[in-house]
Amino acid sequence: MIRFESDYEEGAHPRILDLLTKTNLEQSPGYGEDDYSEKARELIRRACGAPEADVQFLVGGTQTNFVVIEAALRPWQGVLCADNGHINVHETGAVEATGHKVLALPAHEGKITAEQIREAYAAHYADESHEHMVQPGMVYLSSPTEFGTLYSKAELESISLTCRELSLPLFVDGARMGYGLMSGANDLTLADYAALCDAFSIGGTKVGALFGEAVVLSSPALRKDFRYLMKQRGAMLAKGRLLGLQFLALFQDDLYLRIAKQADELAMRLRRAFLEKGWPLLHNSFTNQQFPIVPDEALRKLEENYSFSFWQKTDETHSAVRFCTSWATSEEAVMKLIEDIRRA
Amino acid sequence: MIRFESDYEEGAHPRILDLLTKTNLEQSPGYGEDDYSEKARELIRRACGAPEADVQFLVGGTQTNFVVIEAALRPWQGVLCADNGHINVHETGAVEATGHKVLALPAHEGKITAEQIREAYAAHYADESHEHMVQPGMVYLSSPTEFGTLYSKAELESISLTCRELSLPLFVDGARMGYGLMSGANDLTLADYAALCDAFSIGGTKVGALFGEAVVLSSPALRKDFRYLMKQRGAMLAKGRLLGLQFLALFQDDLYLRIAKQADELAMRLRRAFLEKGWPLLHNSFTNQQFPIVPDEALRKLEENYSFSFWQKTDETHSAVRFCTSWATSEEAVMKLIEDIRRA
Amino acid sequence: MIRFESDYEEGAHPRILDLLTKTNLEQSPGYGEDDYSEKARELIRRACGAPEADVQFLVGGTQTNFVVIEAALRPWQGVLCADNGHINVHETGAVEATGHKVLALPAHEGKITAEQIREAYAAHYADESHEHMVQPGMVYLSSPTEFGTLYSKAELESISLTCRELSLPLFVDGARMGYGLMSGANDLTLADYAALCDAFSIGGTKVGALFGEAVVLSSPALRKDFRYLMKQRGAMLAKGRLLGLQFLALFQDDLYLRIAKQADELAMRLRRAFLEKGWPLLHNSFTNQQFPIVPDEALRKLEENYSFSFWQKTDETHSAVRFCTSWATSEEAVMKLIEDIRRA
Amino acid sequence: MIRFESDYEEGAHPRILDLLTKTNLEQSPGYGEDDYSEKARELIRRACGAPEADVQFLVGGTQTNFVVIEAALRPWQGVLCADNGHINVHETGAVEATGHKVLALPAHEGKITAEQIREAYAAHYADESHEHMVQPGMVYLSSPTEFGTLYSKAELESISLTCRELSLPLFVDGARMGYGLMSGANDLTLADYAALCDAFSIGGTKVGALFGEAVVLSSPALRKDFRYLMKQRGAMLAKGRLLGLQFLALFQDDLYLRIAKQADELAMRLRRAFLEKGWPLLHNSFTNQQFPIVPDEALRKLEENYSFSFWQKTDETHSAVRFCTSWATSEEAVMKLIEDIRRA
Repeated sequence: MIRFESDYEEGAHPRILDLLTKTNLEQSPGYGEDDYSEKARELIRRACGAPEADVQFLVGGTQTNFVVIEAALRPWQGVLCADNGHINVHETGAVEATGHKVLALPAHEGKITAEQIREAYAAHYADESHEHMVQPGMVYLSSPTEFGTLYSKAELESISLTCRELSLPLFVDGARMGYGLMSGANDLTLADYAALCDAFSIGGTKVGALFGEAVVLSSPALRKDFRYLMKQRGAMLAKGRLLGLQFLALFQDDLYLRIAKQADELAMRLRRAFLEKGWPLLHNSFTNQQFPIVPDEALRKLEENYSFSFWQKTDETHSAVRFCTSWATSEEAVMKLIEDIRRA
Repeated sequence: MIRFESDYEEGAHPRILDLLTKTNLEQSPGYGEDDYSEKARELIRRACGAPEADVQFLVGGTQTNFVVIEAALRPWQGVLCADNGHINVHETGAVEATGHKVLALPAHEGKITAEQIREAYAAHYADESHEHMVQPGMVYLSSPTEFGTLYSKAELESISLTCRELSLPLFVDGARMGYGLMSGANDLTLADYAALCDAFSIGGTKVGALFGEAVVLSSPALRKDFRYLMKQRGAMLAKGRLLGLQFLALFQDDLYLRIAKQADELAMRLRRAFLEKGWPLLHNSFTNQQFPIVPDEALRKLEENYSFSFWQKTDETHSAVRFCTSWATSEEAVMKLIEDIRRA
Repeated sequence: MIRFESDYEEGAHPRILDLLTKTNLEQSPGYGEDDYSEKARELIRRACGAPEADVQFLVGGTQTNFVVIEAALRPWQGVLCADNGHINVHETGAVEATGHKVLALPAHEGKITAEQIREAYAAHYADESHEHMVQPGMVYLSSPTEFGTLYSKAELESISLTCRELSLPLFVDGARMGYGLMSGANDLTLADYAALCDAFSIGGTKVGALFGEAVVLSSPALRKDFRYLMKQRGAMLAKGRLLGLQFLALFQDDLYLRIAKQADELAMRLRRAFLEKGWPLLHNSFTNQQFPIVPDEALRKLEENYSFSFWQKTDETHSAVRFCTSWATSEEAVMKLIEDIRRA
Repeated sequence: MIRFESDYEEGAHPRILDLLTKTNLEQSPGYGEDDYSEKARELIRRACGAPEADVQFLVGGTQTNFVVIEAALRPWQGVLCADNGHINVHETGAVEATGHKVLALPAHEGKITAEQIREAYAAHYADESHEHMVQPGMVYLSSPTEFGTLYSKAELESISLTCRELSLPLFVDGARMGYGLMSGANDLTLADYAALCDAFSIGGTKVGALFGEAVVLSSPALRKDFRYLMKQRGAMLAKGRLLGLQFLALFQDDLYLRIAKQADELAMRLRRAFLEKGWPLLHNSFTNQQFPIVPDEALRKLEENYSFSFWQKTDETHSAVRFCTSWATSEEAVMKLIEDIRRA
């Protein structure tokens, strides 16, 4: 059984395990105040062209999202996001558990637009009884989105401009950042994210690390006392160097980008195989997640040797499913799957 | 510089790294639903003589504490604990952030008694306006305590009996559980904890793991839907098997106990060295944390080669400090320190 | 200027002011533990045919909603409700501020159905990753709804049955309960509400009182320690007797029902006037709120002498608006308005 | 039975009921946006010599406290206060329910000092692991305190200076403000409070109103969006004019001050009677609460005709109790009590 179910089914890139092993018995202070974490921060700042930014390492994605959002919002504010955004659907109400409403906007291909943000903001203040409604307090995007799609540079610039005009901090959840950056359809750089967002995350969990998300905080307001909130919410790892070491390995020699690129390329091969087979795609993704619409009969055959995620029924006899590649996916596994797709 | 500052300054026991490396490219489902986690759960259940207990793996100690406490309390309830308890002092108000007051009781050597619990409970209900005060809703202990001291079996039995009589769930924070279990002063077993508590944690972070706390939930009420809360609070690791694998390694061949025992023994040597030197102990600890009261002049000398934690001034010319040993402390390092103590 | 903008624009029914004045200098214990409150509770229990129910008096509607909801839910649970429900739209995220997501279902005429509840529940548990989603934990309805519509007895019975089968507590927000009970379209009694719901409120603020909502707690689980939560959330009035006295006045000689009936009758006259004029109704309400769709030109004329709420544009030249009657609306004012409608 | 148990046992000053009755059937917009509320705000601003201040009316004291505190704090911050402060003891953890720890300082006669605040702040930042501890984020005082004592102008100035230096917003809970202002021992004015505090409340509930607390927000940071939080927390009364009308009555012709003065004078008579009788005072209060230490035998006699609050046992045969006067206390009742004290 080969698993294409998600992009977090293996451990870590071997260089990470090597580095952890090599440094294992060294002693260092805790909570991310060690030299490795500082070096990793410095590498990330450089990769982002953001010498002033604060970089903090958190353990997981849900944690990263709710900590950043809580840091940005006042109690009566909510966060604007796509209705299918991870925070609105798949985090067991983590944002609400910090007291804030998720203000969902109808998404197209997992994305929202500057216009939608502007309209939601305007509609709020146009209402005479706006004090009786949750005040829009920030914007959350994910890129790649839940559907593997990407914001273009023009789209992100437009959203960023709108957010600054409206004083709404902008946060991009980059749990799959690497797969986005290396996609053929992408025209954004880490420096763009740093310049356009108040905060964004660079996901390690799904891109080569055992675990870990780097948060880049461009906004001085968000940087202040951020670590108190991390500690309070259980997001400050005791042996913080474990996070520093992992991001150090990932940001040396462009490892992060190289392994992401490979995953994207394998995903593109799958994409072509689906289309050649005549299986349309539910979402037009050029990153590591692919969503073919497959005859149920063919699915039953594929299930014998592969695992993947059921997404939704599309009609009586077809279903959309999700295949993920990752940094750990082998070319061999993909070739075998493609062969079986052709035969299915 | 040799560090005795805390018990989480190194990575993990080599057997853990080996196991992570060996299994690294295996594929498994996420969120603790993999086979390794299940095996680790089974080993822990057996070690606890608690076939019905639920075992969940969380990443860190603060997280473990507030998730268990939130799971046990109703909104108007608070948690009784020692005034110097970790949740009251060193978790940036994590419990309060979930909406609950910490009801601190004056501790003796880091411990509280069944009598104090009974009195606090009685005092609450004796007050005519008890609805205007936070209702005691559970009891939190740590063992070893912040000061390295231990609850005896008689003490824990008495507290457990009281808690059951008063319908107060009992939770023991075992962040340093291993060092407690293997202390010469200890008469409690994991099976005792499982029988006497509604929930307790078995700390990995400080006892050989990279990170990770196992929570043993004896109480059926606490078990129900506990994983929802874990997910909501960012405490459900995506690659959950990393936690399972670590506890699997720790609970095979009694590794957990053996490495803890060694740390305790080294701490006892330090203890004797302090006493022989004529440096009294602030707390009477028989576990891996030792709190000598040292002439400030001697401290200055020791600081040249060792790091340790300042605890408090005890008089004009003396300070109490903390030395920790851990699973990673070498006999050599301790021998060198003892020599320097003698010379100081 | 005559105001039809809302049903809380005047003070209180004179009998309430009389009773407050008459008893003004009497001394009584606070927090609802006085004799008047107890008598009012007894009257309400009798009116509900629910001798076991607990009745508590809170100050306002938002407060009542979030306190009852918080009392019913566990931290990872959310409340199912109509997407246009008051808690989802007009309470500044009060429910989220207690940590809970509002799980909005698409409403028809302000109402949701037993089938929708059952489907939402089933869909939750059918999802393999349901632990990653907010668990449906209770159901919130309002009756009359935001649009003046009513649940029929058959509908409420069906919802109640479904809720009990699924162990979801059922709460009905009765901020306008009186206007619902006395509507010609209504077939529910207070006794029905008490029998079918776990909790429901009987609104005073909009039906004759200065302020105040009576909450009837049928469910023993909700009754336990409910007053602690009231106190914690600022919902326990110091001079609680003020609430008791008001509900005492309202539930003597059926005052509550009589004044509500008059408001409904006046609303029906308006309804007929709108329809006779050829102005269709946005919502088919038989209670004190009426939503005619009016030519904008006619609205401008009416605005000279009347205030009412803008609801929504329906086309280029028409708008839906809301006219409310209340216990305080005079027949004279309604007659004058009807005349002006005819002329508009 | 004459009650001296608390200062909220009667209704309201007759002038308030008169004004409510006279305006009862007038129509006005809700939520405090009516003319009466605006007039009351203006009177209070004038009385405070603070033309820029925002004044908001809330229903009760607990509500006022937690809303102001929540508005001032960031999630990881706590509020410094006296250990016997109302928020720490008698509000069922209302502050913690908003996520914030109460940082209790040992009080002397219910008061804390600028030095204590400075030390707590310094101790926090002096600790290397201050990110692991709740950050002091504001200061809460009450004046009169729980024990009837008062901050002097010099004390409040010193605290205010310290708070501004440390950027800690200062909030004074003035639930009994009137009784403080009119005390012979007082040297503070409303203008002083407005100048020295970021926010303070002027209690109506205990000083002549049916209910209601006016909050004076001097600090622009606190003013911004404060009403959103009021609405979210159920603290925005639908018929807001009821609060406006009451404060209008209280601030016309100095009614608030005059009725408070009378209560203070009657309390001073009681004070003298206790002392003449040889009953010492537990707290040296010159306001409307008096705390004599009384032989238990005498208490039993007094209990036949008077109610008062038990405070604490002081030795085997004596107890401290609390007698409150209020705006509603009659000279006659006090004379009768004094007679009975003499005879006891």
